[in-house]
Amino acid sequence: MKKFNSRICELLDITYPVFQGGMAWVTDPTLAAAVSNAGGLGILSAMNADADFLRSQIAKIRTLTQKPFGVNIMLMSPFVDQVAQVVIDEKVPVVTTGAGMPGKYMEGWTQAGLKIIPVVASVAFAKRLERMGAVAVIAEGAEAGGHVGDLNTMALIPQVCDALSIPVIAAGGIADGRGMAAAFMLGAEGVQCGTCFLVAEECNIHPAYKEKIIKAGDTDTIVTGKKLGHPVRALKTPFTRKFAQMEDSPDVTQQEADEFGAGALRRAVQEGDQQMGCYMAGQSAGLIKKIQPAKDIIEDMVNQASVLLKL
Amino acid sequence: MKKFNSRICELLDITYPVFQGGMAWVTDPTLAAAVSNAGGLGILSAMNADADFLRSQIAKIRTLTQKPFGVNIMLMSPFVDQVAQVVIDEKVPVVTTGAGMPGKYMEGWTQAGLKIIPVVASVAFAKRLERMGAVAVIAEGAEAGGHVGDLNTMALIPQVCDALSIPVIAAGGIADGRGMAAAFMLGAEGVQCGTCFLVAEECNIHPAYKEKIIKAGDTDTIVTGKKLGHPVRALKTPFTRKFAQMEDSPDVTQQEADEFGAGALRRAVQEGDQQMGCYMAGQSAGLIKKIQPAKDIIEDMVNQASVLLKL
Repeated sequence: MKKFNSRICELLDITYPVFQGGMAWVTDPTLAAAVSNAGGLGILSAMNADADFLRSQIAKIRTLTQKPFGVNIMLMSPFVDQVAQVVIDEKVPVVTTGAGMPGKYMEGWTQAGLKIIPVVASVAFAKRLERMGAVAVIAEGAEAGGHVGDLNTMALIPQVCDALSIPVIAAGGIADGRGMAAAFMLGAEGVQCGTCFLVAEECNIHPAYKEKIIKAGDTDTIVTGKKLGHPVRALKTPFTRKFAQMEDSPDVTQQEADEFGAGALRRAVQEGDQQMGCYMAGQSAGLIKKIQPAKDIIEDMVNQASVLLKL
Repeated sequence: MKKFNSRICELLDITYPVFQGGMAWVTDPTLAAAVSNAGGLGILSAMNADADFLRSQIAKIRTLTQKPFGVNIMLMSPFVDQVAQVVIDEKVPVVTTGAGMPGKYMEGWTQAGLKIIPVVASVAFAKRLERMGAVAVIAEGAEAGGHVGDLNTMALIPQVCDALSIPVIAAGGIADGRGMAAAFMLGAEGVQCGTCFLVAEECNIHPAYKEKIIKAGDTDTIVTGKKLGHPVRALKTPFTRKFAQMEDSPDVTQQEADEFGAGALRRAVQEGDQQMGCYMAGQSAGLIKKIQPAKDIIEDMVNQASVLLKL
């Protein structure tokens, strides 16, 4: 079933060109291993945690799968220098990066032979990272959940593909085989999905989070945090409404808004907090209708895309 | 060459399921007729003008083409009641609507036998218009130029397709055969493009406008006007920078911002005004590299999409 015309499967030795995006507080070894065992690429999140946390996550996933997996390094983390070294020490098969420019780490990582696949949101950013030795990029449109850029998937992917010679993975708005097939038409050689894996059976988030994703309609997400310099897409909830009001108020300082937002994702993931939780999700939430094993999510997507693409 | 699996071609008696979006100040009978003569659907714009203006545009296009054409009615126009009657009197083959809900006109139009294809930006809006007798909808993502909604093409199209039984035309971010093929994978049966027709040889806009589109990169557009309730995507220019500043300033009233914006599109289209012109364009501007006849724009797109879709 290696019929997708994708250099990514060869490069990473995976069966299906489907990545599960690394999501802070969400993607643990159980979920990432389930995705890798199903033939995709499961990706752990180094999130805002220290080296010991990441080392324990890597040790755990290695007991759960023999297949390649990835680690996502969030460049705004206070522990980024530590975890950047951990992925070298642990010879992690694939490293993805988010929320910034990983320039200062690229030389060390590529010299250590790691396969680096940064998340990018513009052509210029993608070109710089190709020159620095990235083996591929994940070009992510603003329909995605969590941290977002300005460009949308439909316009971003072909422009990045025209500018690079390394493979492009499409992200943002993709939750089924139609989105995957569309991404390939735009020139991508793989997809990264986050929101649809939130409802995987193996995903250990609070049941209230899964329920909110399944109930969400097309217009149920909003971007907040633009004025703070780090826009984030999440489900519309009492938290996002209040946060949006604070952002718009001339009487609220950036520090006050940041403090209000601190811990909101953890409260959603671990506590299912209806008032003060931030339920990050992409616009594709409206396409997601049921809880399934990760294997079924991937196979349904791949099979639907194969039919549409006449593979 | 009717090989696209599209009910739109049958319904409207056109060769290719490619609409040229109606653009105020931009789409005149010359451009719309060139598109219709090439096998797509050319669409005039009723813009903010009165019944006499639209009647003269319709009389003119009928001297230039025997093929079906459309009229776009901008629902924020002060003359909307007048022009809504003109399309009935003139038996215009196709009517598209933008910037609002055409509910109050739907009964009169459908009783007159007109084919109504509203532009929609959400599932709920699309479902209401299907019930009111729309023969199709144009679902437009926020990567588009001009007035935009909140949802992006990649996530919007499959959700609208799942909700409706009438055909869905995709718009937003589409400027070549890759985007057209992607739209079909998402379930659309046609595409509407605006930005790529700005650079048609037959498009009578100021040469400076065309030059700006051709020079634009992926990150060269911005949305302004969100706070005024009518967000618009345009190229980043001195005008949009100033307008964005005014929007963000607590000292500027909505009326002052509206007055500053008045006439800005006309100044771009007719005068090529570098300082005070508003150059509406979508994120696909970065994909557009040359001035071509409308026929070549359509045929290049259709041929590339046909190859990608293995038609």
